[in-house]
Amino acid sequence: MDYQVFDTTLRDGGQREGISYTVADKLAVARLLDEFGVGFIEGGWPGAMPKDTEFFARAKTELDLRHAVLVAFGATRKAGVDVAEDAQVKALIDAGTPVVCVVAKSDIRHVERALRTTGDENLAMVRDTVRHLVANGRRAFVDCEHFFDGFRYDPAYTASVVTAAIEAGAERVVMCDTNGGMLPSMITKAIEEVVARTGVTPDRLGIHCQNDTACAVANTIAAVEAGVEHFQCTANGYGERPGNADLFAVVSNLQLKLGLKVLPDGCLEKATRVSTALAEIANIAPDTHQAYVGAAAFAHKAGLHASAIKVDPLLYNHVDPSVVGNDMRILVTEMAGRASIELKSRELGLDLAGHPDTLTAVTRKVKDLEAGGWSFEAADASFELLVRGELPGADLARPFTLESYRVLVEHREDGTVISEGTVKVRVRGERVIATAEGNGPVNALDEALRSALQNHYPQLKTFELSDFKVRILEGSHGTNAITRVLLETSDRNREWTTVGVHENIVEASWTALVDALTYGLARTSAPA
Amino acid sequence: MDYQVFDTTLRDGGQREGISYTVADKLAVARLLDEFGVGFIEGGWPGAMPKDTEFFARAKTELDLRHAVLVAFGATRKAGVDVAEDAQVKALIDAGTPVVCVVAKSDIRHVERALRTTGDENLAMVRDTVRHLVANGRRAFVDCEHFFDGFRYDPAYTASVVTAAIEAGAERVVMCDTNGGMLPSMITKAIEEVVARTGVTPDRLGIHCQNDTACAVANTIAAVEAGVEHFQCTANGYGERPGNADLFAVVSNLQLKLGLKVLPDGCLEKATRVSTALAEIANIAPDTHQAYVGAAAFAHKAGLHASAIKVDPLLYNHVDPSVVGNDMRILVTEMAGRASIELKSRELGLDLAGHPDTLTAVTRKVKDLEAGGWSFEAADASFELLVRGELPGADLARPFTLESYRVLVEHREDGTVISEGTVKVRVRGERVIATAEGNGPVNALDEALRSALQNHYPQLKTFELSDFKVRILEGSHGTNAITRVLLETSDRNREWTTVGVHENIVEASWTALVDALTYGLARTSAPA
Repeated sequence: MDYQVFDTTLRDGGQREGISYTVADKLAVARLLDEFGVGFIEGGWPGAMPKDTEFFARAKTELDLRHAVLVAFGATRKAGVDVAEDAQVKALIDAGTPVVCVVAKSDIRHVERALRTTGDENLAMVRDTVRHLVANGRRAFVDCEHFFDGFRYDPAYTASVVTAAIEAGAERVVMCDTNGGMLPSMITKAIEEVVARTGVTPDRLGIHCQNDTACAVANTIAAVEAGVEHFQCTANGYGERPGNADLFAVVSNLQLKLGLKVLPDGCLEKATRVSTALAEIANIAPDTHQAYVGAAAFAHKAGLHASAIKVDPLLYNHVDPSVVGNDMRILVTEMAGRASIELKSRELGLDLAGHPDTLTAVTRKVKDLEAGGWSFEAADASFELLVRGELPGADLARPFTLESYRVLVEHREDGTVISEGTVKVRVRGERVIATAEGNGPVNALDEALRSALQNHYPQLKTFELSDFKVRILEGSHGTNAITRVLLETSDRNREWTTVGVHENIVEASWTALVDALTYGLARTSAPA
Repeated sequence: MDYQVFDTTLRDGGQREGISYTVADKLAVARLLDEFGVGFIEGGWPGAMPKDTEFFARAKTELDLRHAVLVAFGATRKAGVDVAEDAQVKALIDAGTPVVCVVAKSDIRHVERALRTTGDENLAMVRDTVRHLVANGRRAFVDCEHFFDGFRYDPAYTASVVTAAIEAGAERVVMCDTNGGMLPSMITKAIEEVVARTGVTPDRLGIHCQNDTACAVANTIAAVEAGVEHFQCTANGYGERPGNADLFAVVSNLQLKLGLKVLPDGCLEKATRVSTALAEIANIAPDTHQAYVGAAAFAHKAGLHASAIKVDPLLYNHVDPSVVGNDMRILVTEMAGRASIELKSRELGLDLAGHPDTLTAVTRKVKDLEAGGWSFEAADASFELLVRGELPGADLARPFTLESYRVLVEHREDGTVISEGTVKVRVRGERVIATAEGNGPVNALDEALRSALQNHYPQLKTFELSDFKVRILEGSHGTNAITRVLLETSDRNREWTTVGVHENIVEASWTALVDALTYGLARTSAPA
């Protein structure tokens, strides 16, 4: 088997709302995809998109790919135009890639209503374009748009597009579920019928699935199980509407569940890192719940199972997380016992096995705090500070201590709203008072505290408050309600989450803020 | 066919990191799921979780379900304990639900290593518990944990659990892909083998899939195609790790792709609204890329085919978005936007059919506000105030107007935290200044405002601020983030929800608070 892992993050993935790659982004994405070991990187549509033209030009000198070849994407020649005269086809050749993928209409209704030409001319467009590409030394792939709908509506016509492409010399004909409406059983059945009708063997076919039925990954797998050896995916499933088949889930499933070798050795374990890096480049928050590569993909909550997990993790994980470069995470929750706290601590690099008293103390403290509404399940940094504080000989020097703070929010007669915070703290023996404004009370306190500390801890400048979640925990009808705040802070290298709980939202936020800075400063001050 | 749509959002869905439903949340979730037409709502684990026990107690008087029955979830009796003496089983009976779903170990390795008992005792636990439930008039479902792994490892043992449950009187035996490692083809094959081995027909089996291979929806569909008529899902796929099979995708696929009738008439078109409302209650940002119900599920980038889409949208959409209550976003959705606003207004008792100008004005205002981060999905009271404000001859006399407010939060040297709010308002021609303390800034403002208004509106005493949800909407890294506050208020008869949006959390809360009191006062002052 010679599987073709074809990535179209840079072309179809860029259709996702909100993604807008610069050329530098595109080059960085291509390097990461190559590192992950995909065989084909579809880089864009030269001629149609100026950025894509530039990408292919710069790729010639700036990319040094180990595993992948670049693919230029475009359309078949225009109706009624000589292929050698078609500017868009010329741009495809000029891109200088070893592979060109052209999209063709394969649903007769789209040919007639959107393209406004005849079925025969469309077939000629496919033939001419493929032959022209091959004559120019290119490997030609043909994406058949709206393939499955077309095949259901008029199987003979859609089949004739496949045959025309293959006969003209296309290396692969790709069945595209363009509107994403298929289910796996439909894919299986359609492929059988296509093979029977055209005589084209399934290894010459490819698959491209959109996720509109939430089945893009399963549909892709179904096609591979039916003999297809070329599949098109995007990293993290980025794409128009509900997106495309997620590269990481597809590849992981094929390798780990079906035992097919689709990536070079040593690549699959880069999945988690590459996925996260690609999310950063796309400027989309990584999906913590993403299969295989999400931060929560192997997170276990149920405390009752933790003791069993400790003994035998593979009884609870469908695969060993390390094979995709991920970690098992234990969430500390209401139901947590000693075992899950020990496990969680070990994950954070704190071995409590030799410190039974500390383990007892931490377990008691966590249970007490959780009874009071605290939750450490998402607040690893606060949990780590708590454990470190209980370790024998703990010298968790607090970087500062609070004397008092005050924050004022005012809605003035002219409608403006201001927030002003003042903190009085002791830092390294010095008493510091600082006042700052902010766009809300927590921001004002954050600014005031940073201002108070900045001379002693200049690295605070790199810390950013990146997310803030507030939860009101039910007391007896409002009055005694408790507020829980989760604060996510990041510096250039990592993110960490802290928690604070109080009946007063400002005090809860303050507690989380103090933990966030304490944790971050401990990290950045640690000896290298 | 008698399909059982079994929702476990309140039980398994609550395992998702970050979800922490209050009892009031759980009641609201159950009402929405019932509206969507599911047949079974698994409400939680009475006895094990105090909040769940309370939920079932309050459900008896506070829920009036049209389509669904409630299900209590628990475990089989403990090893070596008489079922009649098992406190946890007793709590299941005490929950008073018509259906009880008990989880049983069905992988011999989990029986021996996690449960630390014998295969025979585990079978006895299943039999005893099911018989006991049936003897107490309950319909019994059995969730077989780690079913597929167990069946692969030791098919005879796993099959014996199925047989034991059925023979003891279980109505359904549910095959759970607990660690989520299956692919659709594996599900199909396993079900065939289970049926062959046990002689239990597939209509007595159920399916419960986790999403660890990104195939939970497809796996569920595969099981139904294999003859299973009971499937367990969670709204929006909420659940541990990558989550569960998404209720909305599964049901939409079954109805729209396979033509199976699984929901009562008129329910599927509520999918989008119910999905969004459930996200709000869970305090999780709705997934705009979710299949069928996401805001971008039918969004087409305006491009080459815009005019073709307008003429013939079904050539580009895999289904008509309106069948799931969604809109296609490429056409400037004047019509769709108007239609849903008209529908929603009618739901609230405001017929806009005869007021096209009001409808236009409301539609424009809602669109503008939503672009700024407002969301009326869960804030009916704010929406109603907005519509009433636009009605011809609107005499929505605001019960008071604000001049200014000020709120101070202070953390003093002795560690006490105080909040003090002052409001200056005009009420029925009088200028009133009032100051009050509270346990947080919003509570202090609420108290001060009530104090200012109480002479004029004594009915304010019956209003309670019953829930408060805060969502930070992303700006670019913290600084320009916007805060959205949802406030739930109740009096003796009903609850209503209002919304406020501002970069300052206090001002956002104030806006929602003013709407909450305005709405409540309009209601209570209205002639009976």
